[in-house]
Amino acid sequence: MTDAALGNFGSAADGDVGLLSPVSASPLVAALTGDRAVLAAILAVESGWAAVLEKAGLAPAGSAAVVASAAQAGRYDAAGIALRAQGGGNPVIPLLADLRKQVSALDAAGIGAGGVGALRAVHTSLTSQDVLDTALMLLARNTVEALLGDLKTTTAALATLAEKHADTLGVGRSLTQHSLPFTFGLRAAQWFQGLAAAGRQLENNQFPVQFGGAAGTLAAGTVLTAGTSATPFTLAGSLAKQLGLAPAPAPWHTNRLTITSLGNALAAVLGAAGKIATDVLFLSRPEVAELAEPRAAGRGVSSAMPQKQNPVLSVLVRSAALQAPQLVAQLHLATANFNDERPDAAWHTEWPALRELLRLALGAAGHLRELAEGLQVFPDAMRRNLDLAGPLLLSEGVGAAVAPLLVEKDGRTGKEQLQDVVDRTLAAPAAEQGATYRRLLREAVPVGSLTDLRLDELLDPASYLGQSAEISSRILAAYPDFAPAHPGSADPVSLTDPVSSTNPDPNGANRG
Amino acid sequence: MTDAALGNFGSAADGDVGLLSPVSASPLVAALTGDRAVLAAILAVESGWAAVLEKAGLAPAGSAAVVASAAQAGRYDAAGIALRAQGGGNPVIPLLADLRKQVSALDAAGIGAGGVGALRAVHTSLTSQDVLDTALMLLARNTVEALLGDLKTTTAALATLAEKHADTLGVGRSLTQHSLPFTFGLRAAQWFQGLAAAGRQLENNQFPVQFGGAAGTLAAGTVLTAGTSATPFTLAGSLAKQLGLAPAPAPWHTNRLTITSLGNALAAVLGAAGKIATDVLFLSRPEVAELAEPRAAGRGVSSAMPQKQNPVLSVLVRSAALQAPQLVAQLHLATANFNDERPDAAWHTEWPALRELLRLALGAAGHLRELAEGLQVFPDAMRRNLDLAGPLLLSEGVGAAVAPLLVEKDGRTGKEQLQDVVDRTLAAPAAEQGATYRRLLREAVPVGSLTDLRLDELLDPASYLGQSAEISSRILAAYPDFAPAHPGSADPVSLTDPVSSTNPDPNGANRG
Amino acid sequence: MTDAALGNFGSAADGDVGLLSPVSASPLVAALTGDRAVLAAILAVESGWAAVLEKAGLAPAGSAAVVASAAQAGRYDAAGIALRAQGGGNPVIPLLADLRKQVSALDAAGIGAGGVGALRAVHTSLTSQDVLDTALMLLARNTVEALLGDLKTTTAALATLAEKHADTLGVGRSLTQHSLPFTFGLRAAQWFQGLAAAGRQLENNQFPVQFGGAAGTLAAGTVLTAGTSATPFTLAGSLAKQLGLAPAPAPWHTNRLTITSLGNALAAVLGAAGKIATDVLFLSRPEVAELAEPRAAGRGVSSAMPQKQNPVLSVLVRSAALQAPQLVAQLHLATANFNDERPDAAWHTEWPALRELLRLALGAAGHLRELAEGLQVFPDAMRRNLDLAGPLLLSEGVGAAVAPLLVEKDGRTGKEQLQDVVDRTLAAPAAEQGATYRRLLREAVPVGSLTDLRLDELLDPASYLGQSAEISSRILAAYPDFAPAHPGSADPVSLTDPVSSTNPDPNGANRG
Amino acid sequence: MTDAALGNFGSAADGDVGLLSPVSASPLVAALTGDRAVLAAILAVESGWAAVLEKAGLAPAGSAAVVASAAQAGRYDAAGIALRAQGGGNPVIPLLADLRKQVSALDAAGIGAGGVGALRAVHTSLTSQDVLDTALMLLARNTVEALLGDLKTTTAALATLAEKHADTLGVGRSLTQHSLPFTFGLRAAQWFQGLAAAGRQLENNQFPVQFGGAAGTLAAGTVLTAGTSATPFTLAGSLAKQLGLAPAPAPWHTNRLTITSLGNALAAVLGAAGKIATDVLFLSRPEVAELAEPRAAGRGVSSAMPQKQNPVLSVLVRSAALQAPQLVAQLHLATANFNDERPDAAWHTEWPALRELLRLALGAAGHLRELAEGLQVFPDAMRRNLDLAGPLLLSEGVGAAVAPLLVEKDGRTGKEQLQDVVDRTLAAPAAEQGATYRRLLREAVPVGSLTDLRLDELLDPASYLGQSAEISSRILAAYPDFAPAHPGSADPVSLTDPVSSTNPDPNGANRG
Repeated sequence: MTDAALGNFGSAADGDVGLLSPVSASPLVAALTGDRAVLAAILAVESGWAAVLEKAGLAPAGSAAVVASAAQAGRYDAAGIALRAQGGGNPVIPLLADLRKQVSALDAAGIGAGGVGALRAVHTSLTSQDVLDTALMLLARNTVEALLGDLKTTTAALATLAEKHADTLGVGRSLTQHSLPFTFGLRAAQWFQGLAAAGRQLENNQFPVQFGGAAGTLAAGTVLTAGTSATPFTLAGSLAKQLGLAPAPAPWHTNRLTITSLGNALAAVLGAAGKIATDVLFLSRPEVAELAEPRAAGRGVSSAMPQKQNPVLSVLVRSAALQAPQLVAQLHLATANFNDERPDAAWHTEWPALRELLRLALGAAGHLRELAEGLQVFPDAMRRNLDLAGPLLLSEGVGAAVAPLLVEKDGRTGKEQLQDVVDRTLAAPAAEQGATYRRLLREAVPVGSLTDLRLDELLDPASYLGQSAEISSRILAAYPDFAPAHPGSADPVSLTDPVSSTNPDPNGANRG
Repeated sequence: MTDAALGNFGSAADGDVGLLSPVSASPLVAALTGDRAVLAAILAVESGWAAVLEKAGLAPAGSAAVVASAAQAGRYDAAGIALRAQGGGNPVIPLLADLRKQVSALDAAGIGAGGVGALRAVHTSLTSQDVLDTALMLLARNTVEALLGDLKTTTAALATLAEKHADTLGVGRSLTQHSLPFTFGLRAAQWFQGLAAAGRQLENNQFPVQFGGAAGTLAAGTVLTAGTSATPFTLAGSLAKQLGLAPAPAPWHTNRLTITSLGNALAAVLGAAGKIATDVLFLSRPEVAELAEPRAAGRGVSSAMPQKQNPVLSVLVRSAALQAPQLVAQLHLATANFNDERPDAAWHTEWPALRELLRLALGAAGHLRELAEGLQVFPDAMRRNLDLAGPLLLSEGVGAAVAPLLVEKDGRTGKEQLQDVVDRTLAAPAAEQGATYRRLLREAVPVGSLTDLRLDELLDPASYLGQSAEISSRILAAYPDFAPAHPGSADPVSLTDPVSSTNPDPNGANRG
Repeated sequence: MTDAALGNFGSAADGDVGLLSPVSASPLVAALTGDRAVLAAILAVESGWAAVLEKAGLAPAGSAAVVASAAQAGRYDAAGIALRAQGGGNPVIPLLADLRKQVSALDAAGIGAGGVGALRAVHTSLTSQDVLDTALMLLARNTVEALLGDLKTTTAALATLAEKHADTLGVGRSLTQHSLPFTFGLRAAQWFQGLAAAGRQLENNQFPVQFGGAAGTLAAGTVLTAGTSATPFTLAGSLAKQLGLAPAPAPWHTNRLTITSLGNALAAVLGAAGKIATDVLFLSRPEVAELAEPRAAGRGVSSAMPQKQNPVLSVLVRSAALQAPQLVAQLHLATANFNDERPDAAWHTEWPALRELLRLALGAAGHLRELAEGLQVFPDAMRRNLDLAGPLLLSEGVGAAVAPLLVEKDGRTGKEQLQDVVDRTLAAPAAEQGATYRRLLREAVPVGSLTDLRLDELLDPASYLGQSAEISSRILAAYPDFAPAHPGSADPVSLTDPVSSTNPDPNGANRG
Repeated sequence: MTDAALGNFGSAADGDVGLLSPVSASPLVAALTGDRAVLAAILAVESGWAAVLEKAGLAPAGSAAVVASAAQAGRYDAAGIALRAQGGGNPVIPLLADLRKQVSALDAAGIGAGGVGALRAVHTSLTSQDVLDTALMLLARNTVEALLGDLKTTTAALATLAEKHADTLGVGRSLTQHSLPFTFGLRAAQWFQGLAAAGRQLENNQFPVQFGGAAGTLAAGTVLTAGTSATPFTLAGSLAKQLGLAPAPAPWHTNRLTITSLGNALAAVLGAAGKIATDVLFLSRPEVAELAEPRAAGRGVSSAMPQKQNPVLSVLVRSAALQAPQLVAQLHLATANFNDERPDAAWHTEWPALRELLRLALGAAGHLRELAEGLQVFPDAMRRNLDLAGPLLLSEGVGAAVAPLLVEKDGRTGKEQLQDVVDRTLAAPAAEQGATYRRLLREAVPVGSLTDLRLDELLDPASYLGQSAEISSRILAAYPDFAPAHPGSADPVSLTDPVSSTNPDPNGANRG
């Protein structure tokens, strides 16, 4: 491949801007998860450590200010560092070399409280995994915070839909076929439940610091703190506090539950979002037309077909959801391969997978919020599709009510007679099934045992909604922080979450 | 393919017994997770439901006893049901048909309190997903219970190793290379931490009942309980109590966090187990020889090579760990595809993935327990491999201690002088590096600034273990229920878990 | 867990019969891929080897007959062997021990040409991986053969649909929305293409023998053949011939391209099948109703809802397709972990994944065949859904034809005028869009420039099908062995396959 | 999240440069696969199409030159296009809008043969999937070409190692334990085989154009070519020729075998590369020390530990190999979800997965090449580890040779006597096992039946290498284009590939 050939294509100087990942190609996602954000997070850890050391009297007074001044991401050449990262296998090593140069220069120039020997505050007793693990926790914490904001706006919108459409009749579907009368309110409530439960799991996640030194023994930290009132443990606690992260009971260089739990929670959010998008994609098809995505200038357009309005928000959300499972698998796969005291490749496979999960989740959450807030709902179409199902959609309830009225006739049990009614109704043309069913039922029951009013009621889909409204209320009540204005009718105390998510969260205070 | 050709191979009458899955081919695993156990769990749910209905006055007195009598797995033809399950896409439908026949026959025969119309207690107002979801929770609960037993025996054994070998010197490794002095005790403690943290996550999992009826509206249940003091919600609560499962706030037909959380916790256990197995596989290689698996008759033999002893326990555990990530991905993938009120295929993909995860985890846990309890530890080999690393393994600590003693010499800083010492030591033959390093250090420092005693200490690996022992103690103390006899020295109250697993678990009491 | 508790559930004596995998719970699948078939395949390899050795004069005359007699799967206790397989990590070792006992006993009893020392013909110079790899190839070959039979019946049925419905008008859909007029024939042809291309890839797969001995050096085989005219290579060739497998250029103990290629081809078949099932699931929804699955007694029934007919065949096929990707990943994952000369766990993870892929593919192929052969097609519904799209579905073609007729008017270009026509049509009620569009087009073009006949033609969906029929014909013609009775109109010689299964150029010189 | 908080992190203006993916953070990888390369490929397709149209007389003379002039990637704002791509779900739509502006402007300005109405040559009758699929094929083709270059350099280096070390004695390992004598040459040959076979599969892959129009019917293309000698099929052929891609028999909008086959071949390359890296990681551990990675300034350094040399090339290659399986799964998963005529999300999930596979493969290939070309081999260490195995490593061959000499003694068969010799040898201290084994063998055989010379030979590992050299030769001979200077001794014609890349029989009649 000659340079000329290459020249026809890209250039190393350009970074990826999300051209092949439209779901997450947004300024917010880039700002929180891009390579520049990774650099900034690494520098924030080094800078935070300098502050910890200075405060503990383990670095010269004034050195933290110098390091903080040097640790501005804009000073560093991300592309160059990425390339040099191949030498040691991770970006901390080359970035550290550049940071040390910056600190030396600033210190020599007397910047801040310069001239103090600030270099001694840089990275002392840390190993690169301490820094990178902590930096990724920082990046994840920030991203999750933004994500939860979008998520709660979305669940609030879904809760509103659930209440507004508590009585909006439609048809329930299972295995693609019509099953029973349903309400759009309960559908929205179930969407809410999926998202809120996953969101709570994510919210309960913790973001701990990493600190173990080269072999996870805190050996250098022990030497460093010898003869002082500090210990490596107190330093780790201070760093956690400094960065707004959670403390950790011990180094977790090779125990990655923190990572897989975070990945699992992100995938759960994406799965719940994907379920909603999958439903909207079906329900907004022209043949169904019960829902439509909110319109926006330039969205959903097709270059060739002016009449076409693509449900792009749902497409993007679903595309993210379909990518999450493989990324979670990647994180789990790493765990078994975290060999020795620090592994030979597994660690390196975690970074892009975790970052991509954060990115997809944040990107999808933004689109989903827009979808939920602007969803167009068409009750008439819901009713039309319900009617399509015909009167036999109610045969479960009709049967339960009518069976006790029947007496054995011509050697046939009541149940057999009812099955016969259903079979004969099914044999009628669709347009006549309503009348046929009614007539056959009338003929089957003893005269006078079934009033017209009662029969009307039995054949009214609205009378066979079971606990739809009550289930919705209970769901909303179970996640009050995801539906603040929707107290619901149920007693939340009596409800339990299928997954242990009512954790009062003793450490949550440490989060961001 | 002619029948004759088939005849040379298998027969449909035989089931799979684990020939291609040695890690989980055990009687316990088969008993808890095999198809026969699935049948039994489904029948337990139907039987439990009959009891609930009778107790609520919604089924004839005596009917529960008839159903219980009919609901013995041995009465049913599993293979036939599996084949007929193709008709409706799930095994509940054909099993139910057979159960009804059994109940009718027993009832007619006056068995138990027969002749009571027990058929009315069978499956009334349930849908097949209610039954199968609940049955799989039951099966999972039983399996997890057995698994946690093995797991805690394993962690107790690892805790013992951690304490016994707190001072057993060896070498720490990162990216395959020697990094710093280490202890086998801390390695065992980190293994413990991985397993205990994952085990706690699993222990906090809940196993809820499923109850929603055909469309998740509880419509049939509402009709059934109309005019009684019961509601579908109280029935669901009774069923949970009857089966020892957790209640659920609402039907979760399409919200599968329960499933993915369980899968995630099982994969976390397998990942932690796999990390241990991966380490043991390396550490028991002939060139390393620090550990050996416990011997047992017939284990690890090779048909051709009589001298060979294969680490079969670790091989099996690692093989299970390498399969878990894909299975978790399968569960997450399903979530986004749980379309409509009950989905068109995703549900069907959950069953084998969840069961296989349970099976691999239980199988691996048994092998790991045996491995941990009988692990052979060779401190001499650990020391020999440590010595292989040479004196420069200590250069991090030596440098920290010696640097302050150095003065600028010939325009070269202390740091530069130290690097020179290292470089010249590296250039010496391996056997002479110890003496060379000592001599060059002596030459570098001002006379009298470094006593022989201090130099000896600096060059003693045992002096550079940092907080190895303290970290071990803290780890053991953080999981008291996984290391009951190992209180540790640290204050457990001050420690936090990286993942929110200190959940006081309001519903845990409901677990089996 | 007490024995009593276990007793309530399963029993180790029962094998799995597919209760949780309805897609593959059939006698044929069990016969070809069950544990009993695995046993039979292993025994076929040992028996075939005995024949090879005897023929080469390396085992006593008559010994092959004794081994063949002993090597009947029915003689062996599969469950016991599975349990004992834990000792060595694979089933060959315990099975071999049992086989040797059988051979000794038969030989001693003078069965066949007994008393000949037949034991010398058993497993001599083989290693267990030689046997198991070869046995799985045998099992895979048999399964693929059966699978290709079903596949070709399916593609033949799809080809028939493609031709029969070449003119059956419907609507094409992209991103869920209506895009252009389409034919059901082309849809069937594209389904055919997916399946045939994947089927051809599978058909081109080879199933080689494995023979390398304990370390892949053929050392024992070299000793065995020393001084004879045979070599280990000729023995391997004879074994391949004996079993109907392909020869291999060298042992492939750690090079698993054979396995991943087979897995990939099976997943491709399942992916193509899944695409069809996904389409059928949508197209047979009540709101769409363009297709329906063939009916069969007991299929698609719902226990609670008598009117419901679930598309169970498609559900099962789709459930298989959603499982394939993770299984392929499992096979690929193994490859990088095939460490040393024979690996420490990766091999063990291949077996269940490969077997499950075979099983899902064979199971799904059977259901898909039934679906394709009996698919109910409803052209009226296709037309109704097409009409739902309104006249603007044709605006792409109308625009191309009308634009040249337009002249600038009031400072607006022809293109702008056309866009205005579209916008105003869209603003009309759905029922009036046809008339509106026609009227506005009339008003836009200069009088006399567009005849009524031409306008009718432009607004007739049947006139805008492009090359639908020709594309179908080309597709059928490209895979003559998958559509034997459908020669098509195109010249198959001029067509190339997107994947190089018929590439005449092994070195790729003909690539771009 | 305030803007200030964001400000501390990244900025949307910066793209990703590979900070978290060191294996592929190189200028070559960026140039061939970066977002800028994607833009360039899309523009190359549009530009190529203009040339095709002009040549066929379907666009004004001179328009192709105008489009080519406009289609320079440098003219476009990649980040802006990525952001706008959210509107339609893919980057072609916004890029096309910008391209049209550029073409209009250039055309208006009379650039090239401007003023010709060049806009009519842009995208006419194409749909965005036509363009993006074709563009990704172009990008893949270029990347694979570069990758194959690196791969063949690597296989050539491995072939050289295989020949140079044909007699370099070492020990073979299975399940981590020593199995038999081995040569480093055969190990290198097996590495070669894995890589060459996967490389050949990749080389045989084809890269077809996509052309189907909005619904895959070629409707617009039919209108476009009406009345000319061209057809949509001839245009597609011309485009393929123009871009150096393969023609396609039909649109493949929803049949993705091309994509999964390419992904599978890339993963196969990465798997084979990962197997080598995994072996090197073990073999270069300090305790084993048989190999070392080539040194390079700044590579493998550790910030804290000056004596440490990390095998970074292998770490990076292995990290890539561990990521490939999930990406292949992603591609396969898409296939079943390619619903309708163009799907609702599956397509969007293909792009990042395919690109990442290309990227990891190209990145890893570069590192692997460097590793293979500079690998340091230490035969002394190989011999030392072989000796560690003791004399019983040879017991398989010794047994085969000695057994015939033994006579029944004290009622014990020869085989039992030999087992006794092995057991007693194993009981001796490691250092004495050689002498013990020799003495016991002497005692076991009748006097005079075994010369010293023969016994020496039997106990010489070099005498028990079987066909190691011949297997190596056959492997090299089977892939002449991957080992050009290594003709080998075997007749390549007689060899077959385990996978049928050169299969002369498309219908597989030669199977079985």
